[in-house]
Amino acid sequence: MEVFAIDGLPEIRPGDDLARAIHERARLAPDDVLCIASTIVSKAEGRQADLADFEPSDRARDIADRIGALTDEEKDPRFAEAVLSESEELALDLPILLAVTRFGHVTVNAGIDRSNVPDADLLLLPEDPTASAERIRAGLARAMDVPVGDGPAVIVTDTSGRPFRQGQRGVALGWAGIAAARDWRGEHDRDGREMGVTVEAVVDELSAAANLVTGEGDGGTPVAVVRGFDFGDHAGHDELFRRAEGDLIRQALAEWDYAAADDAEES
Amino acid sequence: MEVFAIDGLPEIRPGDDLARAIHERARLAPDDVLCIASTIVSKAEGRQADLADFEPSDRARDIADRIGALTDEEKDPRFAEAVLSESEELALDLPILLAVTRFGHVTVNAGIDRSNVPDADLLLLPEDPTASAERIRAGLARAMDVPVGDGPAVIVTDTSGRPFRQGQRGVALGWAGIAAARDWRGEHDRDGREMGVTVEAVVDELSAAANLVTGEGDGGTPVAVVRGFDFGDHAGHDELFRRAEGDLIRQALAEWDYAAADDAEES
Repeated sequence: MEVFAIDGLPEIRPGDDLARAIHERARLAPDDVLCIASTIVSKAEGRQADLADFEPSDRARDIADRIGALTDEEKDPRFAEAVLSESEELALDLPILLAVTRFGHVTVNAGIDRSNVPDADLLLLPEDPTASAERIRAGLARAMDVPVGDGPAVIVTDTSGRPFRQGQRGVALGWAGIAAARDWRGEHDRDGREMGVTVEAVVDELSAAANLVTGEGDGGTPVAVVRGFDFGDHAGHDELFRRAEGDLIRQALAEWDYAAADDAEES
Repeated sequence: MEVFAIDGLPEIRPGDDLARAIHERARLAPDDVLCIASTIVSKAEGRQADLADFEPSDRARDIADRIGALTDEEKDPRFAEAVLSESEELALDLPILLAVTRFGHVTVNAGIDRSNVPDADLLLLPEDPTASAERIRAGLARAMDVPVGDGPAVIVTDTSGRPFRQGQRGVALGWAGIAAARDWRGEHDRDGREMGVTVEAVVDELSAAANLVTGEGDGGTPVAVVRGFDFGDHAGHDELFRRAEGDLIRQALAEWDYAAADDAEES
């Protein structure tokens, strides 16, 4: 399996045809997996926004006040409103905004980016990253003059922190032409025993691999190709984002009162 | 960057020289990163165990009873004792045993494996995976006849589930010859703005990439090589496992009473 970045992409602007821009710079193979950073997908889709676009609701003001009081740093209620508007719900609203985006991804500040955005304050995540992946995949197939089913798979990626482990790593937000996970259940180990629950989130692993070669910052190249990945003869499924009711951690967070815990610790 | 599995390793037994076994099957380059599944590291280190080895404490009996009552499935208190003995603490003891291992890794059942173990009931994780990685790295350098500093890096990997997202992915348990993370802080985006907190957990991303080519089960190959990874000119650091006090999720879990929540829901 080979993983390499595609160099030379220009700064992407609203309305740009990403599939064409990528096709012009890389000779893609039908079984490639393209990992495309959500930043450029958002830029092409016009997801730039300004803080002035967000009129803070009472809830946003309250959230900003409480975080501000805790951190002794003024928090912009318009930013809190932007996060709320991008979220299905908040898994936590103090001391950080841990948001569940409308498409199910749990991430701080709903993944809203405050760097890397020319001529705008904010860059929102794509509204529906799987739909974005499908569009780009169709565009690539068109540019390559092959049926969509024979074209490369596409993953829209992000980098994101996580509980328990420090640091960020690449994760998948949306995907097309590949199942999110492969299912090893029912298969057997070397000793012939049936294996436990083993569902492998391959789109996340592919996104992590891509992140090793793309990098961040001004030298960053937002597209990587994974060539030669073999999904194998496994069942696939597309449930990547846990729902609240299937996630113990979200249940615990829903019942947790950070402010009360913080007070208890100080007293 | 290239990622490939090393084929043909025999079943590993206690006392086997893993470094030699790997060296004999692959022509390694000095800047390779070897990702080695913890299962074979544990096997070589004699971490096989039997349930009969664990005399259940009162706490283990209590845990097993409560989980058993909840799931209507008898839970072996000896297994609960094995998990306790491998753990610094439990982040959650109901409805699952979410353990913090002595080396800081948070995972269900302390990562104890009940499949893939010939002639034993259980396979425990390596006691100190970073020490294991260092030993294997030194062994590889010896076999390659180069100074350790010029030999390949080694990561001891596992697969593990996670909050918020379904499925398992490869993660690092221990590492040698490479920093756990690279630090992009202070660097600038394309627009010249300073980037936010961006620390990339490269050893986890390398483990995830490796897991794409190694696979599980009877066709599994427990060692993969990542060739051509460029760490770049970044600061590195080795803090991968969050401590309890730096982890909101662990704080929330510590205060959460699953049984009370479950009762409330049923009533």
